[in-house]
Amino acid sequence: MNPFQLLKTSPRSKARLGKITTAHGEIPTPIFMPVGTAASVKAVTPRDLKEMEAKIILANTYHLYLRPGTPLIAKAGGIHRFMNWNGPVLTDSGGFQVWSLKELRKIKENGVEFRSHIDGSKHFFSPESVMKAQREIGADIIMAFDECTPFPSTPKEAEHSLNFTLRWTKEALEYLQKNPPLHGYDQHFFGIIQGGMHKNLRQLAIERITELNPDGYALGGLSVGEPTDVMYDIADFCTDFMPKDHARYVMGVGTPWNLLELIQRGVDMCDCVMPSRNARNGMLFTSQGVLHYKAGRYSQITDEAPDPECDCYTCRNFSKGYLRHLHQSGEILAMTLSTIHNLHFYLKLMEQARNHISADTFEPWAAEQIIKLQQQVP
Amino acid sequence: MNPFQLLKTSPRSKARLGKITTAHGEIPTPIFMPVGTAASVKAVTPRDLKEMEAKIILANTYHLYLRPGTPLIAKAGGIHRFMNWNGPVLTDSGGFQVWSLKELRKIKENGVEFRSHIDGSKHFFSPESVMKAQREIGADIIMAFDECTPFPSTPKEAEHSLNFTLRWTKEALEYLQKNPPLHGYDQHFFGIIQGGMHKNLRQLAIERITELNPDGYALGGLSVGEPTDVMYDIADFCTDFMPKDHARYVMGVGTPWNLLELIQRGVDMCDCVMPSRNARNGMLFTSQGVLHYKAGRYSQITDEAPDPECDCYTCRNFSKGYLRHLHQSGEILAMTLSTIHNLHFYLKLMEQARNHISADTFEPWAAEQIIKLQQQVP
Repeated sequence: MNPFQLLKTSPRSKARLGKITTAHGEIPTPIFMPVGTAASVKAVTPRDLKEMEAKIILANTYHLYLRPGTPLIAKAGGIHRFMNWNGPVLTDSGGFQVWSLKELRKIKENGVEFRSHIDGSKHFFSPESVMKAQREIGADIIMAFDECTPFPSTPKEAEHSLNFTLRWTKEALEYLQKNPPLHGYDQHFFGIIQGGMHKNLRQLAIERITELNPDGYALGGLSVGEPTDVMYDIADFCTDFMPKDHARYVMGVGTPWNLLELIQRGVDMCDCVMPSRNARNGMLFTSQGVLHYKAGRYSQITDEAPDPECDCYTCRNFSKGYLRHLHQSGEILAMTLSTIHNLHFYLKLMEQARNHISADTFEPWAAEQIIKLQQQVP
Repeated sequence: MNPFQLLKTSPRSKARLGKITTAHGEIPTPIFMPVGTAASVKAVTPRDLKEMEAKIILANTYHLYLRPGTPLIAKAGGIHRFMNWNGPVLTDSGGFQVWSLKELRKIKENGVEFRSHIDGSKHFFSPESVMKAQREIGADIIMAFDECTPFPSTPKEAEHSLNFTLRWTKEALEYLQKNPPLHGYDQHFFGIIQGGMHKNLRQLAIERITELNPDGYALGGLSVGEPTDVMYDIADFCTDFMPKDHARYVMGVGTPWNLLELIQRGVDMCDCVMPSRNARNGMLFTSQGVLHYKAGRYSQITDEAPDPECDCYTCRNFSKGYLRHLHQSGEILAMTLSTIHNLHFYLKLMEQARNHISADTFEPWAAEQIIKLQQQVP
């Protein structure tokens, strides 16, 4: 069932306001989804996620299939209970992850043979097996099993790749129709649009996937090495053809300014490891721009929050200098506090975006933010 | 000023109930102090510490001197502000840490020359310089600069070592008298009793240190390789001679059952990295005994808390199986959740000990706990 409701489209751009209704809660869009690959958003607790008002988190079928195993999650009553997160969850299908394994995987007509990145053991993912795993995990939104088209690729290669995704999406839906959810609530199935950087193929993919009538649509195969402008252009092109009454999700993107650019092009949902991963490496996104708080010059700044305009737990209570000290000392707390800030920052930015779309002020605000957020904090 | 008030001594053992009053709050004793070596209790936030009702935490002068440097902490307004912990803090003097450096240090008449474990740079700690550093840090309780007597040591070696500690303690006090606190509140100075495993030297140390009239007393040089029974015996011997109206702190000990044994022998305060370090390595102390939750057999237990009798954040919300999954997956959350539990467990145990001393039921309760807590959870 389509869980999306379109509430408004900006009069001055394709930016949309909407809401997604799931068994575990409502998600206002545009939204960013923190990534909890292995049923844990790295370095933070579910309590931290509640406090930063995360509306939905993402987990990964590939990782959960290998560890702890999706039958175990089913036995635990689904991922919400397993990880003690009672808000909405989306699982990626694992298509992108097995594709990323490169030498460790072999794409076949009916699925992908791959070796575990953990122990080298041999496995096979088919559209059906991946849907079975996602039924076991029990996320609120589940993704089609797709074949990510490499960049660059010729039209012929991209079409060949796209055909896998199209056929597998159909097979996935057939499996889901025959095999209802295991945990007593609806799971919404999103199809994935591939086609590389070839617009005619993207258009074809949208047509074909739309025929299958999934509950939502994702753009896959973006942010795989192409120039940012190309990514924006493909997203912009695609949203012109994607059904207006369904959610549109761009997978694996990106920086705060990437998100604003995509929202302006009609995108509703994004996810990325960037805010959490960069946080662990000592980089914060702030209202003043990018802060590399590891730099020695911050050690003396013990009276100023990492982001003076931010009201997250970290910025309310700790200084740039303390954060720098924690990082230098290899303290785990550096990673926790930084992750809390970065995720909070992304989520607040999305909230602001929604407010501005609502007030018809999104475009000038976004234009200003896109410049400001990319600056380096001195 | 002596911050300790003795409230009660058990009629059936030397167990004591007391309270320590500091500028940052009251500490009921017996108490365990979580260790925050580098101004962070590893893997948890100050908020977590508040929730588990930590009454006082410990930090380390040696580590803070090297990184971020104690003048920086002074500039930040003291350690409480620097790390956003507004409860009491105790700083160890660094005596034990420089002693542990072994080949990297050279003990001289007026202090210890050592090389940093971080970058090999050369430094010198004297009783005065260490007191200066502790003034800068601004902990509520500060420790004498001592020379830890190795185990084993001959009476002659132990006496030679003890003489350093005695002279340095006197010099430290002289420095403190001339140099008042920097942050506007009292810092209580604790002397450290050395003397190895030689009772006559321990007795001599107590006499000499008592003459200096410090604000409290610590037993150092325990848990340095001697059999546990010897540690208990030395502590038992010493508390017979230590002033009854001052706090008694055994440094660097130990397991939950060690703590109960020491409390019974008249000890008021303990600290140890064990609950936090072992937590990070997958070991929990629980009401049912020691739990090595890494073991494969726990992976299937997704419906039972790590400690079913515990009400910490971890045990209220997560299962043995999930914790095991997090550990196997190398998730930082495993360390955070385990540390929260272990510290909470220690602190609750101390609370129970206080309640039992108060109710004259400490000894039979402790005897039972000492057996129970050492068992292995099946």
